[in-house]
Amino acid sequence: MRSVITLSTSAPADDTPRGVGIDGSWLLPLRVIPTEGGPVLHMLKAAAPLRPGVPCPAAPAGDERLHLGEVYFSEVLPGHVKGWKRHSRQTQHFAVPFGRMALVLYDDRPHSPTRGVLCRLELGRPDAYDLLRVPTGVWYAFAAVGNSPALLCNGADIPHDPDEGEKLPLDSPHIPYSWDR
Amino acid sequence: MRSVITLSTSAPADDTPRGVGIDGSWLLPLRVIPTEGGPVLHMLKAAAPLRPGVPCPAAPAGDERLHLGEVYFSEVLPGHVKGWKRHSRQTQHFAVPFGRMALVLYDDRPHSPTRGVLCRLELGRPDAYDLLRVPTGVWYAFAAVGNSPALLCNGADIPHDPDEGEKLPLDSPHIPYSWDR
Repeated sequence: MRSVITLSTSAPADDTPRGVGIDGSWLLPLRVIPTEGGPVLHMLKAAAPLRPGVPCPAAPAGDERLHLGEVYFSEVLPGHVKGWKRHSRQTQHFAVPFGRMALVLYDDRPHSPTRGVLCRLELGRPDAYDLLRVPTGVWYAFAAVGNSPALLCNGADIPHDPDEGEKLPLDSPHIPYSWDR
Repeated sequence: MRSVITLSTSAPADDTPRGVGIDGSWLLPLRVIPTEGGPVLHMLKAAAPLRPGVPCPAAPAGDERLHLGEVYFSEVLPGHVKGWKRHSRQTQHFAVPFGRMALVLYDDRPHSPTRGVLCRLELGRPDAYDLLRVPTGVWYAFAAVGNSPALLCNGADIPHDPDEGEKLPLDSPHIPYSWDR
């Protein structure tokens, strides 16, 4: 049985991750701090986002630093979709600091308790400036919403390795979601 | 004797950092990878940016991961300037993945071989998508260029600590630069 979950609004920024209906995936509301001249936007901090009690890059005891493989951006132009993709070893931590992005996750991991679940959500200010964890093995794709580019930032736990990534065409019948709009 | 250095264009992305005229500060050209739907923009990678032979967060031998204190964004609205600021313990690694930012650095560290040097540069695509290292003790301020907001990303080596940051007003006579435009 397949479930479709649509998440449209974010919880308040309280450092409490919430599930998105897919095992190992969560959303963590991030802080937006208004300052003179423009806001400061939190993303990754050793003390908080990457350690909400789920498997993630953990630093040795007493080490306050994040241990990351890579930080990079993916810009999506209006009218475009990137995906489908999944990773066998890399865990992704996504935020959208500029623009608005629609993301769809699909879980077809054979032994997942949430196998078959599809989740659609949006990331971006003002209501959804959140950190999204995408676990290994889960398909994802993302598209800019509206008429402006959107910028996704990924804090990945291991460096990019082309051998551990897998792709499917956007219109693959394997994933029960249509990006035609 | 005071020097003013203005850097206006970036070297090609070749993983070779270049100095900006201030001891401990450098620019590393970052890769912009054109892809269908929008470019991928590199920023921080354990194997490259944070280890070009200068003091920076180093991982234990054999550990391929970055060790960072924090990753956050600072958006600057058109017509605004943020600064002056300096840090006593935090080393900053700046990139501007969206929009265009003017940055000014000023070195008044008593024992610096480049004491008195002021450097103005711009970060942003297409010609200056670079990583800028700002060492401890160096004053900095930044402003959005043009009529759009600009987004700065900072990969800092230690988490934010209000006790190690210092500020001066933008019109401080201590720093020989005028932000009036």
